[in-house]
Amino acid sequence: MEATMTPDVMMKPHSLIASDRIEGTAVRRPNGERIGHIERLMIDKISGKVSYAILSFGGFLGLGSNLLPLPWARLTFDRKLDAYQLDISEEELRSAPSFTEKREFDWGDRSQEEALHRHYGVAPYWGEF
Amino acid sequence: MEATMTPDVMMKPHSLIASDRIEGTAVRRPNGERIGHIERLMIDKISGKVSYAILSFGGFLGLGSNLLPLPWARLTFDRKLDAYQLDISEEELRSAPSFTEKREFDWGDRSQEEALHRHYGVAPYWGEF
Repeated sequence: MEATMTPDVMMKPHSLIASDRIEGTAVRRPNGERIGHIERLMIDKISGKVSYAILSFGGFLGLGSNLLPLPWARLTFDRKLDAYQLDISEEELRSAPSFTEKREFDWGDRSQEEALHRHYGVAPYWGEF
Repeated sequence: MEATMTPDVMMKPHSLIASDRIEGTAVRRPNGERIGHIERLMIDKISGKVSYAILSFGGFLGLGSNLLPLPWARLTFDRKLDAYQLDISEEELRSAPSFTEKREFDWGDRSQEEALHRHYGVAPYWGEF
């Protein structure tokens, strides 16, 4: 395969992002208001599908931030803003299951994952409840 | 949601991995031989599907490693070995499209991505050629 890398070609938009560069991508409300940023993704090692985006939210100067596991299905990527859009009310956000860096979400507990998807009103990534 | 985190629960195996922890996962041949490791993943921002695993391969003490974009469909996760399995001949590996940290693969060029999938004999992640 010949690698032709003219500047023109390099500028082409594409939808791929490196796993080590997704951290920090903004998460915004449909009106553009910034809610927080993506701290990391949780990826299913088997299927290769993103299950959750971990939203870092609140806190001050990085202290006391809450980490919210958002089911991927709730996020929409906005190419124009280069940000993820999340349509969520303040109340839904405040009452959402969250964890902190010191107290990790228990990814091995399917019942907690079910509660999470029910909270956000989306079908679980593994198929059905 | 109540967060119950007994050691028993924390030990449960699950198939999720954080995007910032996937780097370094071993890639092995079906006979167990280590080929290299995953340097990073390329993720489709829109669909949330992993498109490629970037295999770091060859080189010596990290110098001169080649980076091979492997279509995700060619990898199988082996739970027992906690590694990805890749069934590939030495020849197919040596002739595979690769790049280096200094000369990035052109992700915006669909024809190069097509050539990549044809090389590995798998259907492209965006559907059909």
